[in-house]
Amino acid sequence: MNRIINIALLGFGTVGAGVIKILTTNSDKITPKIGAVVNVKKILVRNPQKVRDIKFDGEITTDFEEILNDKDINIVVEVMGGEHPAKEYILRALQAGKNVITANKDVVAKYGKELFEAAEEPNVDLMFEASVGGGIPIIRPLKQCLAANEITEVMGIVNGTTNYMLTKMTNEKIDFADVLAEAQSQGYAESDPTADVGGFDAARKIAILSSIAFGTRISLDDVYVEGITKISSQDIEYATELGYVIKLLAIAREDENGIDVRVHPAFVPSTHPLATVSDVFNAIYVRGDAVGETMFYGRGAGQLPTASAITADIIDVARNTMHNVNGRILCTCFEEKKLCNINNTQSPYYIRILVDDKPGVLAAIAGAFGAQQVSLNSVIQKRRVNHCAEIVLITYNVTEANVRLALNTIKGMSVVNEVENVIRVVS
Amino acid sequence: MNRIINIALLGFGTVGAGVIKILTTNSDKITPKIGAVVNVKKILVRNPQKVRDIKFDGEITTDFEEILNDKDINIVVEVMGGEHPAKEYILRALQAGKNVITANKDVVAKYGKELFEAAEEPNVDLMFEASVGGGIPIIRPLKQCLAANEITEVMGIVNGTTNYMLTKMTNEKIDFADVLAEAQSQGYAESDPTADVGGFDAARKIAILSSIAFGTRISLDDVYVEGITKISSQDIEYATELGYVIKLLAIAREDENGIDVRVHPAFVPSTHPLATVSDVFNAIYVRGDAVGETMFYGRGAGQLPTASAITADIIDVARNTMHNVNGRILCTCFEEKKLCNINNTQSPYYIRILVDDKPGVLAAIAGAFGAQQVSLNSVIQKRRVNHCAEIVLITYNVTEANVRLALNTIKGMSVVNEVENVIRVVS
Repeated sequence: MNRIINIALLGFGTVGAGVIKILTTNSDKITPKIGAVVNVKKILVRNPQKVRDIKFDGEITTDFEEILNDKDINIVVEVMGGEHPAKEYILRALQAGKNVITANKDVVAKYGKELFEAAEEPNVDLMFEASVGGGIPIIRPLKQCLAANEITEVMGIVNGTTNYMLTKMTNEKIDFADVLAEAQSQGYAESDPTADVGGFDAARKIAILSSIAFGTRISLDDVYVEGITKISSQDIEYATELGYVIKLLAIAREDENGIDVRVHPAFVPSTHPLATVSDVFNAIYVRGDAVGETMFYGRGAGQLPTASAITADIIDVARNTMHNVNGRILCTCFEEKKLCNINNTQSPYYIRILVDDKPGVLAAIAGAFGAQQVSLNSVIQKRRVNHCAEIVLITYNVTEANVRLALNTIKGMSVVNEVENVIRVVS
Repeated sequence: MNRIINIALLGFGTVGAGVIKILTTNSDKITPKIGAVVNVKKILVRNPQKVRDIKFDGEITTDFEEILNDKDINIVVEVMGGEHPAKEYILRALQAGKNVITANKDVVAKYGKELFEAAEEPNVDLMFEASVGGGIPIIRPLKQCLAANEITEVMGIVNGTTNYMLTKMTNEKIDFADVLAEAQSQGYAESDPTADVGGFDAARKIAILSSIAFGTRISLDDVYVEGITKISSQDIEYATELGYVIKLLAIAREDENGIDVRVHPAFVPSTHPLATVSDVFNAIYVRGDAVGETMFYGRGAGQLPTASAITADIIDVARNTMHNVNGRILCTCFEEKKLCNINNTQSPYYIRILVDDKPGVLAAIAGAFGAQQVSLNSVIQKRRVNHCAEIVLITYNVTEANVRLALNTIKGMSVVNEVENVIRVVS
């Protein structure tokens, strides 16, 4: 007779229902791996009257205390989303000596330190594989499989909505506004798309990934963020011509200048492993001193992929419970490290400028860059519009501060109509 | 004062030296993760006089018994390679209650069952992350991160040598013999290249992966194997024209007909995530019922990538040792499952035939396929050579047995000069 491990879900939305589905459908695979049966004893919901299209035989409750005070419940799985009261519930569950699994990137990115500290004394597990990359195994690979490495770079496409939009803009030559409207009607983008298109969702995820990769706590405020709202079909056309694809990247790098963490659109060479990651797919590229380049690819969102990651955490915590070793691997942020300000980062840049179509203008612009030590790799005069000419420049690897100074000068020139876009290039 | 975990290496070749390098260089990252210092106490070598370009302060021995009888040694790391005496040493170490880590695909594929059984009673760890995919995390992701899934397919490029050769043949239009000679001179292929180009190395790896993925023991003999020796630059040219790349794939699938495990060259659509995996890189594509498609990409061989995986295992075993839970996750082959014979597998096929350049030949060939229910998706008459014509066919999804019967008839036709190649297409 198998032992029973009782768990509770906080939330019975799409992802919660996915966890129930997997635990039901694949119980014959899961039970022997643990040596115990996972039983969902209670689910916390807001509205118990709501009709759900999934069968659940356990108890439905609206009272968190009922779960907290249930001594049989070993694992609390937070799938309600949002910052509050999710954070408070997670904290109290940990303090009550319960193991916690969460898919909540907002809470982990913002309160990770506090929650991990709370897990220490009662020695319970706190797992969050689903918080980044949906079903893609990435937290455990970073914490365990690549643990022997000094990680120097994590670079990911970690937001499915924007990747879907950029893929569509690239393949079908549609403008940002149109593709956003289409993504909203398909349910790929929310009615308020700011978290996705503004880069903030990706920022939370790279804060989590970089904390693990570099062994130091990176908070959301440490991440420099630019979204994709300024990307036009013109930029995409030039990128294609030049052998690149535009992706919203979450980038974290460590070198002698410190840790540099940022989210922004980028020109990715079409030969880079991330270049072919299309539609709603996500991928995380990791570079370590021993392993070299690795990449992890899959579905970054969706009911079952997310529930796959959560259920893997349930299996892992249950295995720990069976061996009495909960809290075996907790926070791995052992060091304090300095951050590198965005002004001190280096990159090649793509710059698109609309100027008066007159002799001498190109020389003036090149001169302004030169005065700030910004060397130009290529300068192409593109289409002419009315009395204007569009100039596309790619710089060599240069410092952000210098680019900004040069662009300030250029913006002040009477022959310059507009600096239309500035996009970093992945080298 | 940190506790010390003593380990011994069996073998001090390239990979063993890599483990020493990583443990030395990254000790500041590794020690806090374990809460203990990993100390390589002894290394078993054949020739203690051999000059090595790496500093090692511990004991060098030629006597395995010295390691076996050393009560301080908690982990034995087998990096000597070859079947014997590696297998016997691993077995005896497990029986003596030592945890074992091995990078030895030959031993794991052939003796996995026996070794895992030996690990059970003393309750010790047996880890083998480096045995497949070099530095790519794949064993632990399959055993843990995707544990909630019913895995339906594992498909990998798991041999770097052949992938390097096929990439070179594709990009530079070089023939097999020339590219093999070049790979041998570069050290990418061995002087006897049979294990690589014959597909046997990949077969060992897919036996290991499929055993974990399907939870049943798949032995090397269960794997159907074809190598890449028959791939010509002509096949590669046609593949490119038709929108495919040719890769040596290790494929394992489970459906209602049973488990189908095979290694052979295949036409991979150029849009498939595996298509862009080039040169010596490896990638393993995994499909699960919950997670959908995932892929794991990186360096499948080399000193430091392989040592990265081994050292990750060392960290994991040491973590287990610190918590007294060695043997926490052992063999997960809980079921006996039936295999699907290659004759019963289904696939589209690419078939290249040299025929007499006469009217009616095409109709005769199409008729022979039709008589065996092999439907043709496309038939293209390609180049003419002397009085012959080359016909390239792509079939619909058809049964292997039927293709073989049809080809037997076709080979017997007086107008057919040669069935030049038959390559399965990934659909």
